[in-house]
Amino acid sequence: MIKNDEYYMKEAIKEAKKAYLIDEVPIGCVIVYQDKIIARAHNEREKRESALAHAEILAISKACKKLNSWRLEDSIMYITLEPCCMCSGAIIQSRIKKVIYGAYDYRFGAHKSITYLFDVKFNHQVDIKGGFMEEECGKLITDFFKELRMKKSCNS
Amino acid sequence: MIKNDEYYMKEAIKEAKKAYLIDEVPIGCVIVYQDKIIARAHNEREKRESALAHAEILAISKACKKLNSWRLEDSIMYITLEPCCMCSGAIIQSRIKKVIYGAYDYRFGAHKSITYLFDVKFNHQVDIKGGFMEEECGKLITDFFKELRMKKSCNS
Repeated sequence: MIKNDEYYMKEAIKEAKKAYLIDEVPIGCVIVYQDKIIARAHNEREKRESALAHAEILAISKACKKLNSWRLEDSIMYITLEPCCMCSGAIIQSRIKKVIYGAYDYRFGAHKSITYLFDVKFNHQVDIKGGFMEEECGKLITDFFKELRMKKSCNS
Repeated sequence: MIKNDEYYMKEAIKEAKKAYLIDEVPIGCVIVYQDKIIARAHNEREKRESALAHAEILAISKACKKLNSWRLEDSIMYITLEPCCMCSGAIIQSRIKKVIYGAYDYRFGAHKSITYLFDVKFNHQVDIKGGFMEEECGKLITDFFKELRMKKSCNS
């Protein structure tokens, strides 16, 4: 098995599907260090009743514990969706080297959709790229909201 | 005891002093709901070896647990320092109503010092004000770094 960007994004998609199964907006994330996945997480905002429980924040928390360091300088993050401001800030704070994400988030995306947080001149610059396996990542979210609207219209 | 902005900021300063005592950059935060402090925290990044362990993130986590909700819509946050991007994003995500902070952070501040995150048109707008008891809040940080430089020069 070749462990390339596609392999790792598929692992992030697996995480997003776990969120889907528990009725959370399906967003998944993995963090890779020295060619190994050191943290994986999915969105659990409703389950945990925490505004902080985005996939990226949970994964960063796990990765910091794993490496016993707040600095994740040599790590790469794969996310199924463009990160929001909070998660983008956490990526910069934890000094993650590189981020590859799938679908764009036209409501909250802080890479380029709603603001350009990674263009601000911080002491740490992240190599970030969006639109990777965009269709597959985006479809999960579209399907989720389609299903949610159907459920709601059935209940009303 | 009148519980006004000054009272609550003094409580945030108490938290910042706790950080100082454990050699963390002295930043403190409290969250107030229905005129009661429901969460208090200070910066613990080094102690916890977590990039996420800023005072604001720790306080939001506690407040969500306390109210058993990820929505902190009627809460007010007092912070001794202007929030960074991550914490500003977390404030917006958790829908905190109002933020009052002390000193400006010319390196990382996301309210107005390095970027204007609260001016972005999100679905939630926060009423945020800086410079409250600025001198007292800022002095703590200045003293901390002065002491750190002295220690370093003594050890070199």
